[in-house]
Amino acid sequence: MTMHVGIVGFRGYSGVELQRILAAHPRTTPWLLEHRADSTEAPQPLNRPGLARIACTPAAILEAGIEVVMLATPPEVSMDLAAKLIPEGIRVVDLSGAFRLGTAETYKHWYKEEHTAADLLLLAVYSIPELHRSAVAGARLISNPGCYPTAASLALQPLVAAGVIDRAAGIVCDAKSGVSGAGRKPSLKTSFCEVTENFSAYSILNHRHVPEVLMNSGLQEQEFSFTAQLIPIDRGILETIYFRAQGLKDTQALLDVYLAAYGQEPFVRLYPAGAMPDLRGVNRTNFCDIGVRLDEKTGRAVVVACIDNLVKGAAGQAVQNMNLMMGYGETEGLL
Amino acid sequence: MTMHVGIVGFRGYSGVELQRILAAHPRTTPWLLEHRADSTEAPQPLNRPGLARIACTPAAILEAGIEVVMLATPPEVSMDLAAKLIPEGIRVVDLSGAFRLGTAETYKHWYKEEHTAADLLLLAVYSIPELHRSAVAGARLISNPGCYPTAASLALQPLVAAGVIDRAAGIVCDAKSGVSGAGRKPSLKTSFCEVTENFSAYSILNHRHVPEVLMNSGLQEQEFSFTAQLIPIDRGILETIYFRAQGLKDTQALLDVYLAAYGQEPFVRLYPAGAMPDLRGVNRTNFCDIGVRLDEKTGRAVVVACIDNLVKGAAGQAVQNMNLMMGYGETEGLL
Amino acid sequence: MTMHVGIVGFRGYSGVELQRILAAHPRTTPWLLEHRADSTEAPQPLNRPGLARIACTPAAILEAGIEVVMLATPPEVSMDLAAKLIPEGIRVVDLSGAFRLGTAETYKHWYKEEHTAADLLLLAVYSIPELHRSAVAGARLISNPGCYPTAASLALQPLVAAGVIDRAAGIVCDAKSGVSGAGRKPSLKTSFCEVTENFSAYSILNHRHVPEVLMNSGLQEQEFSFTAQLIPIDRGILETIYFRAQGLKDTQALLDVYLAAYGQEPFVRLYPAGAMPDLRGVNRTNFCDIGVRLDEKTGRAVVVACIDNLVKGAAGQAVQNMNLMMGYGETEGLL
Amino acid sequence: MTMHVGIVGFRGYSGVELQRILAAHPRTTPWLLEHRADSTEAPQPLNRPGLARIACTPAAILEAGIEVVMLATPPEVSMDLAAKLIPEGIRVVDLSGAFRLGTAETYKHWYKEEHTAADLLLLAVYSIPELHRSAVAGARLISNPGCYPTAASLALQPLVAAGVIDRAAGIVCDAKSGVSGAGRKPSLKTSFCEVTENFSAYSILNHRHVPEVLMNSGLQEQEFSFTAQLIPIDRGILETIYFRAQGLKDTQALLDVYLAAYGQEPFVRLYPAGAMPDLRGVNRTNFCDIGVRLDEKTGRAVVVACIDNLVKGAAGQAVQNMNLMMGYGETEGLL
Repeated sequence: MTMHVGIVGFRGYSGVELQRILAAHPRTTPWLLEHRADSTEAPQPLNRPGLARIACTPAAILEAGIEVVMLATPPEVSMDLAAKLIPEGIRVVDLSGAFRLGTAETYKHWYKEEHTAADLLLLAVYSIPELHRSAVAGARLISNPGCYPTAASLALQPLVAAGVIDRAAGIVCDAKSGVSGAGRKPSLKTSFCEVTENFSAYSILNHRHVPEVLMNSGLQEQEFSFTAQLIPIDRGILETIYFRAQGLKDTQALLDVYLAAYGQEPFVRLYPAGAMPDLRGVNRTNFCDIGVRLDEKTGRAVVVACIDNLVKGAAGQAVQNMNLMMGYGETEGLL
Repeated sequence: MTMHVGIVGFRGYSGVELQRILAAHPRTTPWLLEHRADSTEAPQPLNRPGLARIACTPAAILEAGIEVVMLATPPEVSMDLAAKLIPEGIRVVDLSGAFRLGTAETYKHWYKEEHTAADLLLLAVYSIPELHRSAVAGARLISNPGCYPTAASLALQPLVAAGVIDRAAGIVCDAKSGVSGAGRKPSLKTSFCEVTENFSAYSILNHRHVPEVLMNSGLQEQEFSFTAQLIPIDRGILETIYFRAQGLKDTQALLDVYLAAYGQEPFVRLYPAGAMPDLRGVNRTNFCDIGVRLDEKTGRAVVVACIDNLVKGAAGQAVQNMNLMMGYGETEGLL
Repeated sequence: MTMHVGIVGFRGYSGVELQRILAAHPRTTPWLLEHRADSTEAPQPLNRPGLARIACTPAAILEAGIEVVMLATPPEVSMDLAAKLIPEGIRVVDLSGAFRLGTAETYKHWYKEEHTAADLLLLAVYSIPELHRSAVAGARLISNPGCYPTAASLALQPLVAAGVIDRAAGIVCDAKSGVSGAGRKPSLKTSFCEVTENFSAYSILNHRHVPEVLMNSGLQEQEFSFTAQLIPIDRGILETIYFRAQGLKDTQALLDVYLAAYGQEPFVRLYPAGAMPDLRGVNRTNFCDIGVRLDEKTGRAVVVACIDNLVKGAAGQAVQNMNLMMGYGETEGLL
Repeated sequence: MTMHVGIVGFRGYSGVELQRILAAHPRTTPWLLEHRADSTEAPQPLNRPGLARIACTPAAILEAGIEVVMLATPPEVSMDLAAKLIPEGIRVVDLSGAFRLGTAETYKHWYKEEHTAADLLLLAVYSIPELHRSAVAGARLISNPGCYPTAASLALQPLVAAGVIDRAAGIVCDAKSGVSGAGRKPSLKTSFCEVTENFSAYSILNHRHVPEVLMNSGLQEQEFSFTAQLIPIDRGILETIYFRAQGLKDTQALLDVYLAAYGQEPFVRLYPAGAMPDLRGVNRTNFCDIGVRLDEKTGRAVVVACIDNLVKGAAGQAVQNMNLMMGYGETEGLL
């Protein structure tokens, strides 16, 4: 018998990805939860049944026997829905930024709006499973990480923990993302003719994903320079991270730090010295691929980390967290 | 001394192209006519002066000494502005569909709205210069053709005139366009993630550009099947035209029909037997490139016609028409 | 216990797709068969085992217990390998054009080279399962169809069989394909800078896939005009088919022909009147999506058919055929 | 009367750009110099004359009255041709890396091959005009800079000269380039299907353009981390440069350093605080666009510099240098 899982925001890019993953997941039956009437869905084939669809109300959700609701919604909608669903005993996995930062004040500082469900912040379990796995089992509200912080935190946390970064010299994370990271709502910035054959930087040194990276890696804001940039592709995030290494004699020594941390991880793949990952390698997968280079003479180092922003950066990691929350195998439905 | 030319709709893709062409044109000084406040312009460099900008009112236009106004605006705006400017003695080149079809009834049928400046229809001179050149000199209102009809009419008119098409079997025009043809206003259909790595058909057998092609080529609607399709590129139109030939013995004979019609045309280029044009060849040019193939055994024929939808399909042809209207050299500012 | 399946040409685009599908298939264990030394593979992650790899010799294949070999190779390699493997009792699914046309003469006419395994032509079973399903069970050599003919045949066969096409007026198939259809070998024509922001036609009226379409649909060459075109995308084929309908009163009547033929097919999806499929809908799936429009006044009709050229047009259909050959469920590993 | 200019390597991407610029340049008549037979040119229209074409020999060049030869060729060809042409009194502008580094030893270190025209190194004048303008007039051999170093040097030189970089903390230059930078020769790395929907890093910390940046900016290798990355677009380079500022109080102060250096430069455009350039803004232009941001609290700074790699990064800058060499107006043929 499968578990019933509801998806709110199922027309958005992360929502479509959740549909795809949960429909193929051996443990789950997905339901579409209609939160707002919307005519932007693609037409459905005549001879093909769609997923079941009900209103996104606690009553309808309970009646359908749905145990977990995935919120692929903007933060303000997530706060509102989580506050309604949690008291009914429905578990929530939230893909928005609503519950990622520890306090209402920090939220307001970075998201420029009031937090309307501050009492849930203590309940919320933020989890990149490779870094926070042990806290997830049995959670009632999971805060799924941002796309940029997932790659950056997986790349930086082992290095900071191992003390191999000369932090006084600063760390640079030059991040590039496909356009789906901006969501499905039409805007001039994501119009085809503005993006194709173009490349541009945005949120320079002040992206709201920065505090998540600091929280996960243990770095301080003044040590960390982050710029986001738009690649003319649909999906994928590549981050190029620069720092000065200390206590490492060559590229292999740097690689060894990652092998120690992630050698057995099912969703982190490490590239041998001389090779580097790229975005095609992680496309439509839940992998985070990492490659490294250390210049032996000077100690300058580069780490490249790649994910699919809609999978490991959103829907895939949400399902990975759901698996942990429910006590399923962590990789079920994801390989 | 240069002629002052105003551009309305200068932020749109055709409007930006008009700015580019008119700024480099040896006979003209372009002005930006601000019709509606709008914050979607790209930021301007600090150390670079922009074009002069004034309000789009008859008084301001007259005071600036502007003789010709180019309307890169939706049809309803073009009707409104043309009705205000023409009586003041200001010449107008309209890039919209407002004045392309001969009567208010035909306009209403295809554009699904009332024509609000029907009295100007008799004044308007519709012109693809290669087909209608002689009518343009001295015009007060030019109706610049649609992008699809420009390529299709240039490809079909000589064949129909020469009687080399078996019209009973029907003619197919399978048209493909870059996304800029849909304009700059954001919409889901032209969002990057919906278009990239995709290809789709629209307005199948009922595109509102069809009546222009029929008018220019002399074909009847029941003889002509037209489908528009969206290529994931910024600009360019390629049309693949299929028909059964009569009275032609080989590819060269088909080519000879075009050589007779266009051999001396400055903006039509013909490809030798065995070669075909492509969109890169016409990118950012005012050329229409044509290639042909005739299967000698069966008489089946294919013609491929390419233009840049923003140049020969819009701004470039508008300037070509302006040149003819003002008695300038037809190619000035366009080669 | 799973069946062992070998893949030759596993580095090519169809070969990579075969690896992906067969690795996830519940009935199969894939092996990589190394036919030629080649250094073009992407680097492999350190902490991830690859698929088993052996030499592509009958002895090694037999020793590994491989029962079926998939040939994702050029025709000349396929002829050579099939002639070596079939006599050893190893079943072969060939994805090349080597065994698609019935005779060595036809092969030579269209492929411009001698057929070197003509005696296998009688043994070979050509199969688009929706059209030739009954012939596949127990086959020793399957000839997997071409990508263009798969979509065109699925679209045309039911119409020809139902007699609803006015064949005297001719049928046009305007086909567009992503670049992966040209294979992985570098060439100027498939270089990024030549393809991006471009669109071009090739093999006009003489593509070697034409005889397959005629064979499957029952049309004659002089009735059928086919042009192939290159879309600047990775994968996907969209074909726009034009004809004059007879005996059909509206779009729904045309749709009914397809519903009768394919209403229960697991891999053909039909779109309701007013809707049309696009390439994103079939991306990475084994579906063929079909949409139609009939102009009631004139009888002109358009059918749009979409597939992923690497899945339903190659690797997916090969596995669908393998399933039928081995008596597995036809959809296993493909949904 | 115009000056005759020869182009070697006219089929390559920089060569095609040279054709385009020199054909429109009021002072020059371009000639194509055929160095090697090659069938990769696009077919030419029937009714359009091409540029004059002669063999690339000193005799033919002299007979045609060609005064300047542009070499858009690989370094080894440039060394060979320069050594033949210079003694004949023909001026040379070389777009390759052959004469960019001061000595044969440095060349061998970075280009991994012997320098075969070392005696010309002293004669060669390396010039980014904005930095080295005064040395160019009357030169006999100009070494045109690399694409990456053009943007990086223009961005870094004023900052280093003004002493506003905390060099001890290191400078990061994260560079991204369109695919045309890799040239027109087909390779797997630049095949459409490998590049589209992908993004990847290469030459991490050891790109051979690094010594040019150091030479122009005055930085030391151990201070400077440089990574090149491939954007799935045709043309354009965007470099994101990170450093810790000293002695600057805000973004405007950083901008003032550039205004002092480039406020009057015709080909450098500066963006106001809060705005950033992108690649579409410089596409097909000879501009270098620069935008900046300084975080006041921490002194972390980011500079974004954009050029078109084929214009300011190759052909356009070559013509700018030719203009200076010949005493023409620096901007002639380039605005």
